[in-house]
Amino acid sequence: MIKIAVTGACGKMGRVISEIVKGRDDCKVIAGIDIAGEAYDDFPVYKKLFDMDEKPDVIIDYSHNSALVDLLTYGKNYNIPLVIATTGFSDEQIAEIHKASHLIPIFFTFNMSLGINLLAELAKKAASVLGNQFDIEIVEKHHNQKKDAPSGTAIMLAEAINEEFDGNKRYVYDRHNSHKPREKDEIGMHAIRGGTIVGEHDVIFAGRDEVITLSHTAQSREVFASGSVNAAVFIQNKAKGLYAMSDLIGK
Amino acid sequence: MIKIAVTGACGKMGRVISEIVKGRDDCKVIAGIDIAGEAYDDFPVYKKLFDMDEKPDVIIDYSHNSALVDLLTYGKNYNIPLVIATTGFSDEQIAEIHKASHLIPIFFTFNMSLGINLLAELAKKAASVLGNQFDIEIVEKHHNQKKDAPSGTAIMLAEAINEEFDGNKRYVYDRHNSHKPREKDEIGMHAIRGGTIVGEHDVIFAGRDEVITLSHTAQSREVFASGSVNAAVFIQNKAKGLYAMSDLIGK
Amino acid sequence: MIKIAVTGACGKMGRVISEIVKGRDDCKVIAGIDIAGEAYDDFPVYKKLFDMDEKPDVIIDYSHNSALVDLLTYGKNYNIPLVIATTGFSDEQIAEIHKASHLIPIFFTFNMSLGINLLAELAKKAASVLGNQFDIEIVEKHHNQKKDAPSGTAIMLAEAINEEFDGNKRYVYDRHNSHKPREKDEIGMHAIRGGTIVGEHDVIFAGRDEVITLSHTAQSREVFASGSVNAAVFIQNKAKGLYAMSDLIGK
Amino acid sequence: MIKIAVTGACGKMGRVISEIVKGRDDCKVIAGIDIAGEAYDDFPVYKKLFDMDEKPDVIIDYSHNSALVDLLTYGKNYNIPLVIATTGFSDEQIAEIHKASHLIPIFFTFNMSLGINLLAELAKKAASVLGNQFDIEIVEKHHNQKKDAPSGTAIMLAEAINEEFDGNKRYVYDRHNSHKPREKDEIGMHAIRGGTIVGEHDVIFAGRDEVITLSHTAQSREVFASGSVNAAVFIQNKAKGLYAMSDLIGK
Repeated sequence: MIKIAVTGACGKMGRVISEIVKGRDDCKVIAGIDIAGEAYDDFPVYKKLFDMDEKPDVIIDYSHNSALVDLLTYGKNYNIPLVIATTGFSDEQIAEIHKASHLIPIFFTFNMSLGINLLAELAKKAASVLGNQFDIEIVEKHHNQKKDAPSGTAIMLAEAINEEFDGNKRYVYDRHNSHKPREKDEIGMHAIRGGTIVGEHDVIFAGRDEVITLSHTAQSREVFASGSVNAAVFIQNKAKGLYAMSDLIGK
Repeated sequence: MIKIAVTGACGKMGRVISEIVKGRDDCKVIAGIDIAGEAYDDFPVYKKLFDMDEKPDVIIDYSHNSALVDLLTYGKNYNIPLVIATTGFSDEQIAEIHKASHLIPIFFTFNMSLGINLLAELAKKAASVLGNQFDIEIVEKHHNQKKDAPSGTAIMLAEAINEEFDGNKRYVYDRHNSHKPREKDEIGMHAIRGGTIVGEHDVIFAGRDEVITLSHTAQSREVFASGSVNAAVFIQNKAKGLYAMSDLIGK
Repeated sequence: MIKIAVTGACGKMGRVISEIVKGRDDCKVIAGIDIAGEAYDDFPVYKKLFDMDEKPDVIIDYSHNSALVDLLTYGKNYNIPLVIATTGFSDEQIAEIHKASHLIPIFFTFNMSLGINLLAELAKKAASVLGNQFDIEIVEKHHNQKKDAPSGTAIMLAEAINEEFDGNKRYVYDRHNSHKPREKDEIGMHAIRGGTIVGEHDVIFAGRDEVITLSHTAQSREVFASGSVNAAVFIQNKAKGLYAMSDLIGK
Repeated sequence: MIKIAVTGACGKMGRVISEIVKGRDDCKVIAGIDIAGEAYDDFPVYKKLFDMDEKPDVIIDYSHNSALVDLLTYGKNYNIPLVIATTGFSDEQIAEIHKASHLIPIFFTFNMSLGINLLAELAKKAASVLGNQFDIEIVEKHHNQKKDAPSGTAIMLAEAINEEFDGNKRYVYDRHNSHKPREKDEIGMHAIRGGTIVGEHDVIFAGRDEVITLSHTAQSREVFASGSVNAAVFIQNKAKGLYAMSDLIGK
């Protein structure tokens, strides 16, 4: 029974994680950490990570990028594997994460959904087989409150594909008024916004008389929480190093 | 048996029309007009409209916008209904078409496909029922040689929808780097380009926890030829005036 | 401010309704009725409808088909409009509902989603324009726990379309091993089952070289609750009679 | 410059192949074979394979399964690689093809489209990663004249996926009236028929709150001809043995 501590335990994702873990028999949440929080389940909630009495096998981090120093220090001090699901890190912070992974196992991935990461793998494979004979376009759909465009996941997909072309593709966001045929090195990026759409991503490969489309639809944010728990179970007994969802998928 | 003359008879669309008409028993092609052309079927092909010996019941025009004056003059002189399927007219030319329709019946529509015009009708209906509670986005896909974006059909769809909002919606072509939530008055317009895609149009209505999508896919340019023949049969015995596909659909 | 009572108030849908009503300023829930229930919000919950002290303007019924007699009797005794969102009624019970609608206004519809009902209207319109030249197929997708197939909504859509053909279409559920071309009078019905899909319905019109697809996707069951509240607001001041979502849409 | 002979040269596919080869600079058609045919291009057309004067580097076979003996004999006698694109072989005939491949290189695959074969590879990969946590359904769409259902390609996809489950999945064609939840070992197979749809295949993986869909759309039968030419170029200098599109894709 793998013992998990969750930072950001009282936030939306923290609560979903405690729900999901209840439905599994290979792990359990033994403590939560949340600056604003109080206990809401059968495990204690601490204000700070260093207040925690328990010794977890792995920490899932859904706190905030400002709490990164504490998280890495704690992990290194007590030699505890980390699943970092927080987003919005600066380049310096990402460098800190990489550095810490020389000492402890860290699972760090842009997108915690198993499905999205599989989509990225399949898109890479398709790009390598189809090559320049097919045109690639990425379409993503999200709710009308989302501020950034294209989605981070769409960018992750584009970059995964672009690796297969040695980075020679460029991203095109607007064709309005361009008045010229599509060029071979384009990857079109399209951000649809509307209603309460949770998240949809299509990678389109359009060739001569045939089109292949690889799609992922998320119904709720639960898919990310679920991926984080999979990651925690995966990483808890691994050697030091940096791990991503592609390791879990096992290319 | 309705007698049809086709201008641009030796072009791609002209030939498709002669094919389609053969499969029907309510009409036949009695003459073609094409500056560069010669006979390829059981009807004569003339260099110019005024050379034609036959008297058609209706003319389908797939020539070129530069031939408009001749076409309208011929139609008015001999009182022959016209189906104008040529595109790329200037505002002045469109005004000429409207003027001519005070004297003879003219079928003039942006897009000759029955399906696309039905899509426009359904999208207007949906917009009027769903109102501002749903966000509207239009996605179109075309082959990689298409120069203009968004497609004329996508604009036609957006304008049909916008009529239901008294023209208060504005078109958004690029959300990249905008960093703000979607606004209520947006209609997002997205132009996917790739391979040999003939033409796909999606109108998306995204609301609270539900999405309605109305889609049209064209498999070949034949759908436009087929619509033109339907239009010819429809208009050949109508009174003078301007007709569009919506009259044929019968709102 | 329209006063609403909800039966089945402590069930999943009852709770969602009380959530949705809170977000509106034209109505409020003043009482709940639930045999197993207790108060969970700022309104009282009664075991039985006839125990209720309050006098609502309209009742939304999400109880159980076995409670129909009580519901209709209460509505008729106190002249209160009813929105009946419960499902699974027998033909006799449906006849009872129709009979009661001679005395009071009753909103009764197979599917409470505005979107699904709009989809049915659009599909009818498309069927009437496209006629027998297009082949019609209905595809629905639901979660892997759903027991019935095809979904009630798919049947509702098929029947709405079939009205346009005077009932001459027949439903085909399995083409496996049939070894013959599709016939004109078929409506293919396809039930995809998987994962936690809430509900998707596609109506496909496939013609010569073009396909029109009308789709609805539900993200949560909330869409039904939301439609019920719209129905309650719509019906609370109507004359006696039977109303459906198509009256609300206003064909 | 690879020299190709085409059997069934005057059929629809044979003609498309000669078109496609013209657009390439690595191969050319030097002879056609067609029992009913006559020359229509710059290469001779023979009634029978053994009449051919030319010595091709590879033969693409689009004749008829009844011509198999001649084809294999010719290939073995003159040591010429074969691309067999004809369909409808009996088990005995397939055994003959396998036997012949001990002597000469033979490319034999159920579906000549690069895209479809890539789809099969991606679907296998997805199945191996997602395992039993996701439900798999296959939806195919074809024109209304197609007699068999499900399509051979849908079956090929299902079998490729089923290999990942050691053949433990079973195919379900009809859920109508079954009144029970979906079972884990099902692969739902759905055959949509309508209009002139050339061929669409969706493989759906539906899990907890996420769905991955892998789709292929063919716009014309040209994709098969194009795949055959790719196969011919691939196989012309290979060692004896049986080759399939997966070898060309290079798993």
